[in-house]
Amino acid sequence: MSKEITARSQDYAQWYNDLVLKGGLADYSPVRGCMVIKPYGFSLWENMRDVLDRMFKETGHQNAYFPLLIPKSFFSKEASHVDGFAKECAVVTHYRLKNDPDGKGVVVDPEAKLEEELIIRPTSETIIWNTYKDWIQSYRDLPLLINQWANVLRWEMRTRLFLRTAEFLWQEGHTAHATSEEAVEETRRMLDVYADFVENYMAVPVIKGVKTPSERFAGAVDTYCIEALMSDGKALQAGTSHFLGQNFAKAFDVQFSNKENKLDYVWATSWGVSTRLVGALVMAHSDDDGLILPPRISPLQVVIVPIYKGNDQKSAIDGKVEVIVQELKAAGIRVKYDDSDNARPGWKFAEYEMKGVPVRIAIGARDLENNVAEVARRDTKEKSSLSLDGIAGNIVKLLEEIQQHLYDKALAFRKEHITEVDTWETFEKTLDEKGGFVSAHWDGTAETEAAIKERTKATIRCIPLNNPQEAGTCILTGKPSKERVLFARAY
Amino acid sequence: MSKEITARSQDYAQWYNDLVLKGGLADYSPVRGCMVIKPYGFSLWENMRDVLDRMFKETGHQNAYFPLLIPKSFFSKEASHVDGFAKECAVVTHYRLKNDPDGKGVVVDPEAKLEEELIIRPTSETIIWNTYKDWIQSYRDLPLLINQWANVLRWEMRTRLFLRTAEFLWQEGHTAHATSEEAVEETRRMLDVYADFVENYMAVPVIKGVKTPSERFAGAVDTYCIEALMSDGKALQAGTSHFLGQNFAKAFDVQFSNKENKLDYVWATSWGVSTRLVGALVMAHSDDDGLILPPRISPLQVVIVPIYKGNDQKSAIDGKVEVIVQELKAAGIRVKYDDSDNARPGWKFAEYEMKGVPVRIAIGARDLENNVAEVARRDTKEKSSLSLDGIAGNIVKLLEEIQQHLYDKALAFRKEHITEVDTWETFEKTLDEKGGFVSAHWDGTAETEAAIKERTKATIRCIPLNNPQEAGTCILTGKPSKERVLFARAY
Repeated sequence: MSKEITARSQDYAQWYNDLVLKGGLADYSPVRGCMVIKPYGFSLWENMRDVLDRMFKETGHQNAYFPLLIPKSFFSKEASHVDGFAKECAVVTHYRLKNDPDGKGVVVDPEAKLEEELIIRPTSETIIWNTYKDWIQSYRDLPLLINQWANVLRWEMRTRLFLRTAEFLWQEGHTAHATSEEAVEETRRMLDVYADFVENYMAVPVIKGVKTPSERFAGAVDTYCIEALMSDGKALQAGTSHFLGQNFAKAFDVQFSNKENKLDYVWATSWGVSTRLVGALVMAHSDDDGLILPPRISPLQVVIVPIYKGNDQKSAIDGKVEVIVQELKAAGIRVKYDDSDNARPGWKFAEYEMKGVPVRIAIGARDLENNVAEVARRDTKEKSSLSLDGIAGNIVKLLEEIQQHLYDKALAFRKEHITEVDTWETFEKTLDEKGGFVSAHWDGTAETEAAIKERTKATIRCIPLNNPQEAGTCILTGKPSKERVLFARAY
Repeated sequence: MSKEITARSQDYAQWYNDLVLKGGLADYSPVRGCMVIKPYGFSLWENMRDVLDRMFKETGHQNAYFPLLIPKSFFSKEASHVDGFAKECAVVTHYRLKNDPDGKGVVVDPEAKLEEELIIRPTSETIIWNTYKDWIQSYRDLPLLINQWANVLRWEMRTRLFLRTAEFLWQEGHTAHATSEEAVEETRRMLDVYADFVENYMAVPVIKGVKTPSERFAGAVDTYCIEALMSDGKALQAGTSHFLGQNFAKAFDVQFSNKENKLDYVWATSWGVSTRLVGALVMAHSDDDGLILPPRISPLQVVIVPIYKGNDQKSAIDGKVEVIVQELKAAGIRVKYDDSDNARPGWKFAEYEMKGVPVRIAIGARDLENNVAEVARRDTKEKSSLSLDGIAGNIVKLLEEIQQHLYDKALAFRKEHITEVDTWETFEKTLDEKGGFVSAHWDGTAETEAAIKERTKATIRCIPLNNPQEAGTCILTGKPSKERVLFARAY
């Protein structure tokens, strides 16, 4: 095999990078913290995006597009937003280059300095609410349900492919409502949409919850989230949905006349998921041989590899495969016949295992005689012989089985990795030795939360929705607590 | 009617702006030269994008994504590219803001100055070819057929919604080939794809041609283009496809070992269309009552408006319309039933005319009795009474008829507006009084081209493909010429 993958047990972070790079998902770029999304990785993102986009439209949202650049002063308008977002960001100060007087390339033209600097959007609440001011006058203009697919940029100090990059792709929903209740309902609806997508398409189980105040989005009244568990026992925030109250409406003076013809500030939500989900997908399912992709969003679902000696065998196989490919395509399956003569079957097998293609079909001359093919599952590595008659129907079933199996496996892993803990000693020990979510009592203060993070690097991932109320004492301070919360070390 | 539109005859530029703003396509933004694409306008762009994306994939291309920011030095690597693109652009010089010591918002942190400035991509040849260096080693890696959907930014001095904005959305194809012939073939193939799309989906006839050297893309060996004619007689470049020779491969040292195992530089193409096409669409078909959108890409194809007095009539109409909507949707038609009680039918009629919805169906109580509906075409304003039996099939036919009629009308207009001219006096007079394309002899020099532009504001739009060879004398200098070229004033 030409591409060596580091084993998870040896170096999990390196294993992840190997998969992303050698699996053809992304590449480093010459720009600090920015990556190139390669065709295979982008095709995966397209599939995810298309499903989400359909879900957004089915829940009444429309897409729009707002400017990449935001005037610096906009960030100062919402008090807590500025602290969260206006710090590590890319600042445009000039709008022209000129030839270097020394004849060496180009230099920034000092004459072309902007009066007010422009910031590359780290998120778009400010410019969007500045626009909504012109779009909303009356309750008849509400709700306003808009989503944007865009690139954003945050000047991260430590970056990792997909998981944390300076520039990343995402969608950001920004909605405006006449009442608090409607806005909260929207916040929760979109959380459900995210959970539906991540569980049923990415095959990754999530816990829905609400963030503690210190983990809230800058400018939000409440931040809801879905939290997933990676195969190394670390948590990953897979999506967030924010109830923004009237904070941005007040900051940008967006009022509407309600049915009683009285002026009131508009209620807001925002919600987003990003290319980070690709990283989550990699770490949730894959193994030491490469990526394992869930069939519903995998760029390729089936690859067919011919095994032959000589042209006669090859043409006989070609003829039969042509029919199978047509049948599979007719059944809505994304299939590729790889009959390239650049590589031997064994090399191809390894390559498609690396790329995580859910099902591999191998057909040789003897298979043809017996009217069968060898079908291999990527997830379990099981091989079986399948009749070529009605193969499309069986592959459809197999793909659904794989989808379900990936979810079940990840769910079982997560169940094993939620540990109820009642002493500080066990708390630290569980984080160090077992990982996963630790369900423990907390006294509800930001100070204790910070102290726990300082001592263990674990954060409160969320307070689960419909969390059972149970009296207890804080794991660190021993002060009274009324419910357990979920701690974990996280990406 | 609530929204007044300026008449074309009165002020064409204002008419255009009225349509874009009041038709709900776009809005101004607080960022100089940048626009907000509103949901209706974005839906139109999405439809255009989806068709193009399918065409790109059918011709073997894959999507990928490259960084927004490009190191300044990259622009100096291709000699002519730097002059064309590295001048008016947004320059990122810092990566952090900090609280203003005076307590007034945030200021740029002088400590956070980048060692090398980053440029927001005006186009991505440089960063992509810098990446291709790592991706291409052998002829087996070729051809590399990649497209990117992205935002780009060029600091334009005079901007107009969609037609010329600082930030705009586009796609940029960047392909790499083993031979010059293959690259030229690709350049021409994508020109054909663009022409196919603009003619058969946007219903705008185009002239395919090649640019003169002075109108070439900075860094190209040849720039092919499609040129369209707007209803005011000005031309608009609707798409370009560039044969880049080995220029970028040499600038970024991208070599491959060919089948003879010898190193050679890779051959390149790039090609793009942008949200500018939305502006072209508006100016090609619309009239003084609003937008006219071709059915194949119109966000809505049919709107149904009920006309009733009282709840009884309303529910009777609702019941029937529900069936019709199902039939239309089953026939693949994008349809909306607007039974909102916010506005009277007359207001709605005007609104959907403004928005250019191809077909309007009005149903009243008497229509219901007679089992008919009033069907109005947006393009010709013709109304007819259509039986409700089998209405879906008839609407499908009508939409195709409208699509064809828009194209035929635009083609007839263009035919009337290509004028062969042989004297300077007629040349100027034609441009001033009639507009459109002027087909005239030119001596082939950049000096004459510039002089003609200086005197008339007309540029050589293209030398049409398969241009008849015909001896003549230059319209300005009287020097010998071997073929006519197309001049026009242009957007």
